[in-house]
Amino acid sequence: MTDRRTKVPITIRWTSDGTGLFILDQTRLPGERVERELRTVEEVEEAIRSLRVRGAPLIGITAAMGIAALARRHAGASETDDLAERVGEWADRLSRARPTAVNLGWAIARLREVAGRSYGNAVELAEALAAEADEILAEDRRMCRAIGEHAASLLPDGASVITHCNAGALATGGIGTALAPIYVATEQGRKIRVFADETRPLLQGSRLTAWELSEAGVEVTVISDSTAGALFSTDPPDIVFVGSDRIAANGDVANKIGTYPLAVIAGHHGVPFYVLAPTSTVDLSTPTGADIPIEHRSPEEVRRGFGKLTAPEAAAVWSPAFDVTPAALITGIVTERGIHRPPYGPALAEAVATGRRGASGQREDGG
Amino acid sequence: MTDRRTKVPITIRWTSDGTGLFILDQTRLPGERVERELRTVEEVEEAIRSLRVRGAPLIGITAAMGIAALARRHAGASETDDLAERVGEWADRLSRARPTAVNLGWAIARLREVAGRSYGNAVELAEALAAEADEILAEDRRMCRAIGEHAASLLPDGASVITHCNAGALATGGIGTALAPIYVATEQGRKIRVFADETRPLLQGSRLTAWELSEAGVEVTVISDSTAGALFSTDPPDIVFVGSDRIAANGDVANKIGTYPLAVIAGHHGVPFYVLAPTSTVDLSTPTGADIPIEHRSPEEVRRGFGKLTAPEAAAVWSPAFDVTPAALITGIVTERGIHRPPYGPALAEAVATGRRGASGQREDGG
Repeated sequence: MTDRRTKVPITIRWTSDGTGLFILDQTRLPGERVERELRTVEEVEEAIRSLRVRGAPLIGITAAMGIAALARRHAGASETDDLAERVGEWADRLSRARPTAVNLGWAIARLREVAGRSYGNAVELAEALAAEADEILAEDRRMCRAIGEHAASLLPDGASVITHCNAGALATGGIGTALAPIYVATEQGRKIRVFADETRPLLQGSRLTAWELSEAGVEVTVISDSTAGALFSTDPPDIVFVGSDRIAANGDVANKIGTYPLAVIAGHHGVPFYVLAPTSTVDLSTPTGADIPIEHRSPEEVRRGFGKLTAPEAAAVWSPAFDVTPAALITGIVTERGIHRPPYGPALAEAVATGRRGASGQREDGG
Repeated sequence: MTDRRTKVPITIRWTSDGTGLFILDQTRLPGERVERELRTVEEVEEAIRSLRVRGAPLIGITAAMGIAALARRHAGASETDDLAERVGEWADRLSRARPTAVNLGWAIARLREVAGRSYGNAVELAEALAAEADEILAEDRRMCRAIGEHAASLLPDGASVITHCNAGALATGGIGTALAPIYVATEQGRKIRVFADETRPLLQGSRLTAWELSEAGVEVTVISDSTAGALFSTDPPDIVFVGSDRIAANGDVANKIGTYPLAVIAGHHGVPFYVLAPTSTVDLSTPTGADIPIEHRSPEEVRRGFGKLTAPEAAAVWSPAFDVTPAALITGIVTERGIHRPPYGPALAEAVATGRRGASGQREDGG
């Protein structure tokens, strides 16, 4: 399935009777475009755990829609209290599927709260859960589009963009964050060229970003991560767009490993560097980038990421999942509230304060 | 086989009767350490063509030793003129094995010249060829050691080094170029830590550099290429050592893709950046880096480098094999003549003029 307006792949949808989900199975990309039907809690859990759906916003949406679909499926034959109890069990189970994904817990908490209210019967409860899941999805779509519309103003016709990892439609329920302005500008008739960093170790740039952009008819060129230097020397892109996993109160940005060297090179060549993320990514309780905890990935992703030994067992592997780009290297931060300029401290504090309504609390992750 | 002094793997050696070669089969690394015996021209050609031996210096040495071994094998039953003619046929065949490798043609030309002289019998011709091949190998070893000894002075005890691709023992007949000072400093009792960039697309850093350093007992950590940024932010290496494929007259350096962004990041963090290569790599007829032709690799190395589709067919791939690091980002260039400082123009011209004797004409390549 594809969004009619942008031709962006749709990552998740209800089955026709609303008692199940279809997800785009991202583990099969870019080789095969396969929708997978999820009808049991085991299937929803497995889809999240094994990265068939990934990206923090999308994981939260999947859990919420999954719980609601299960509730609808069981509502006809259940007492209201029994169904509410089962919702609690499904919520417990799914919240353990990927414990580090911030949005998973957040979306599930919203469903739990809805389940805690009073209903005339189980069907009413199920429909209230489905309405909440629909609202989570709709908020996410609005957030993506708002980011896209703000940042599309940065893209004149013929612009070339470089991006890293996947902060696109495949990470969200909408048109993504870093890729959103590319879809909006394309929809408005402008021709945009994109360079996608491959993004070792897990290749989200080549596997996912390049795939969703080419599906949407956007011209995209994949480069290995270390080729960005040669690109800036010979055919410099006009702008850099990346997502973020967490933005500190001072504007320092944690994002997928490789974002920081891209910012350094962009700065060296005077190319503007923008971070695109919802206000929910801004963590005002984290003063600076130095305070952001950095997850480390398994050495095996580097040592035998493709099923073959490519680094000797005797060598160590160092594989942080994220790096921190200091605010000083960032030209602007785009949230659903607008384009924020340095100094970021006051700009982000105000965006967060006014952005609570309509934002969906998502954090991006590239996994 | 291992060099007794440095414990560096030996890439090539004669069989005990001198009528064949043993090569370390680099296509089996890092998983298996296997020597392969070459006794026919077909076997020598196949070993070069299929990258069982790689690195321009080593390819030249292999062709020279291969021709000499074949000559010894056939000398007993041949007339001198017949053997000289066969040497010409072997030379023609091997010079086509990897036509872009500068050293292959250069080493073969030296053997042809030896074969063109007068001899009392075929055995004398064969021994003269073997002596020339031995001299090519010995020159290469001297060049590597001289570079290593000059640059080892840059490495205090406890130093950490970051390197890119493989400009090590596996690319030469000796202890390499960029890795040579690490072996020399280790031999002198200093403890050196090395970070090896994985080096997409062909992973020479993780497959080869990490392997040869760990075999020699040097502490080595593999990082994906885009992790270098986080390394410089959190645990900056003391120095960068890279090889070169070609050095322009003004000191601009072409080397494996990814070298330039490493230089930019090192510069951003104030970490010294050194290029280590023989004077034969300096091309005084190339005025600047902009004049260096850049080879492009097959998109398939990025699109399905690991036997699996990792970028969609609809996306383009841009894959230059090399990038150019401007002289302004280079702290020093180390040749067998010493450590050269900016301005590089006069320093390199003098090194080339005085370095002709004792240099072996090699160019590095990472393939």
